Amino acid sequence: MPVSTALFASRMMQLRPSTIREILKITVRPEIISFAGGLPAPELFPVEAVQRAADSVLASNGAGALQYGESEGYMPLREWIATEVQQRGVAASASDVLVTNGSQQVLDLVGKLFLNRGDVVLTENPTYLAAVQAFQAFEAKFVPVPTDACGLIPEALPELIRQHQPKFLYTIPNFQNPTGVTMTKERRIALARIAAEHGLVVVEDDPYGKLRYRGTEIPPVKHWDETGCVIYASTFSKTIAPGLRLGWVVAPAEVFARLLILKQAADLHTSSFDQRVAYAFLTQNDQAVHLERIRRAYGERFDLMNECLRAEMPTSYTWTQPEGGMFLWVTGPKELDALALLQRAVERNVAFVPGRDFFPGHDGSNYLRLNFSNSTPERIREGMKRLGKLCHELAAG
Amino acid sequence: MPVSTALFASRMMQLRPSTIREILKITVRPEIISFAGGLPAPELFPVEAVQRAADSVLASNGAGALQYGESEGYMPLREWIATEVQQRGVAASASDVLVTNGSQQVLDLVGKLFLNRGDVVLTENPTYLAAVQAFQAFEAKFVPVPTDACGLIPEALPELIRQHQPKFLYTIPNFQNPTGVTMTKERRIALARIAAEHGLVVVEDDPYGKLRYRGTEIPPVKHWDETGCVIYASTFSKTIAPGLRLGWVVAPAEVFARLLILKQAADLHTSSFDQRVAYAFLTQNDQAVHLERIRRAYGERFDLMNECLRAEMPTSYTWTQPEGGMFLWVTGPKELDALALLQRAVERNVAFVPGRDFFPGHDGSNYLRLNFSNSTPERIREGMKRLGKLCHELAAG
Repeated sequence: MPVSTALFASRMMQLRPSTIREILKITVRPEIISFAGGLPAPELFPVEAVQRAADSVLASNGAGALQYGESEGYMPLREWIATEVQQRGVAASASDVLVTNGSQQVLDLVGKLFLNRGDVVLTENPTYLAAVQAFQAFEAKFVPVPTDACGLIPEALPELIRQHQPKFLYTIPNFQNPTGVTMTKERRIALARIAAEHGLVVVEDDPYGKLRYRGTEIPPVKHWDETGCVIYASTFSKTIAPGLRLGWVVAPAEVFARLLILKQAADLHTSSFDQRVAYAFLTQNDQAVHLERIRRAYGERFDLMNECLRAEMPTSYTWTQPEGGMFLWVTGPKELDALALLQRAVERNVAFVPGRDFFPGHDGSNYLRLNFSNSTPERIREGMKRLGKLCHELAAG
Repeated sequence: MPVSTALFASRMMQLRPSTIREILKITVRPEIISFAGGLPAPELFPVEAVQRAADSVLASNGAGALQYGESEGYMPLREWIATEVQQRGVAASASDVLVTNGSQQVLDLVGKLFLNRGDVVLTENPTYLAAVQAFQAFEAKFVPVPTDACGLIPEALPELIRQHQPKFLYTIPNFQNPTGVTMTKERRIALARIAAEHGLVVVEDDPYGKLRYRGTEIPPVKHWDETGCVIYASTFSKTIAPGLRLGWVVAPAEVFARLLILKQAADLHTSSFDQRVAYAFLTQNDQAVHLERIRRAYGERFDLMNECLRAEMPTSYTWTQPEGGMFLWVTGPKELDALALLQRAVERNVAFVPGRDFFPGHDGSNYLRLNFSNSTPERIREGMKRLGKLCHELAAG
């Protein structure tokens, strides 16, 4: 007989394919201008430099690049990452760095380490959809932390901690996905202090930190972590290329040791080849020049989208002004049904992500997440025109 | 305050770093002849062909190779895999194939899909250590199935199913890790029949099937799966290179859909770059020629190790005669403490894996797993001499 669904673990009750994902599947058609995906601009990928890196890796030690490697990651890459996070203001050595398959895998491993069924995770509201999925795989419950234009509000935490005994807080302080909001320095300092006082574990996800095109860099929350309660995750997906699936986590020793056991059980280790190619790319090329190209392009694309939104959208729509990253967040009129809007938008060959699923409680149907990194200026102009026209028609009834 | 261990999930109680792994860490020193690891022969890696493949992938569609990809895997590679498993006797199409980070990740995803705390997994006894770790991460209990020189004994299953209601049976029918034993055709047919009758899910792990250097190929258990109760996993780790971390699973539709959700939550997808490089390698080179080189070398190395064991070991030691794969399994005299033997062996610069940890119940201290794929003939001769001498000294008291 075929596999009975009664055999599946209880976690599978919560995990369902998303409706949005099904709709968005058709947005890969080239005629659709999509602001939906969270994709970097492919024309900025350093293809030739990666080719030189791959050549040199295979020419110098091909057998090493193709053999099993250590679960911790490729040591020279871990050393490079340690230096990088030091420059971000985090005291770390190579032995604190675990290399993962993108930072998404950090979320899976962290979920596995901390979460029993019913355990509470505190999150921003809205928060990163795939983090919710990763933690749902361990049957977490989500409790939102009040959030405003300066990020989450640390003063709200003590009461939430008392009430819910959360296993950890998940936060994206830089150019948050989906809102584009950045947590202020004052808030970060307060968060680190409150976490230390209350024994709150903070999982700080920083995929976009290097993509700041405006304003002043703020150190990660981990910078102010004096007691070792912050787990810091980041990635090469936005700075080299997501196709290599290379992320990392910097964790306190007692957490690191256990994440390592889980990493080994999950997939032994991350691709030896990709790790060495990334290391060669990082050491053979001027990173400042490469990053500046990406930042400038994303800043221009944000400016253009911002300008187009002003020109095209009804006045009942507002949106965030992110200083970096890849997303902005649109708030429509209260009565807006963004999922219905998406269905009509796709008929006109333009797409976005309705905001509802970014709220763990699915509250809020009048939000749109727009990606500005993946579309050329021409497509941003044309796509915004189509979307604006549709929103005007809706507003007119 | 630092992260309190009281915050960790209950699964972490079972998952501990292995003592053996700690001892074996020193075996990477070049002066140590190690039969411990499960590593392919690096001198047989197709380094130049992989280099040509990487070049062509980046030259023809570099942006595609570096961008996010589908969670299911790169479609041309899935099609190639479907054709490959068809040739192994498994009816499958590309839509049944999920690409993973090595077949180790299949074990993680399967564990996540089926296992609640305390659920039973049936395994061969001994079985693959890292499968036990992967399932332990979901707090499985293990029940061994009686096993002999023909593989596990299917007739024992109905009673075990009745008694324990297992979530699935985990089996490695070809050149099993650690014993090297191959399940006979008759046993596979009986297993498929009994599984179908009793609604037993079978997780068939086939990393070594293409490494047969002697005897006749036997189709996978999945070949006789008429009702869709067998999940079939395999890998490119032994046929191309483990460093690329490319495995796959062929699963019935209702299982596939859920493994896909879990794959997405775990790490979004497997490296786009590695998948395309592997696909280019597979289509640009004659696989039969490449595999024949590996098979011949491993067959010669097994023959040599077998001959050395006969010449060097006390008569109280016996061992298996695998027809493929990378391991053989030595049974020492009842009173042998293989862990103590390892400690003395390492002092003489030779290493192996004591068998005890391959038994989920840790029964059996008088076994050794020897890898014959990773050492050159010279090192096999010298290493066997050292090990034999030590065993003779022990036998003499």
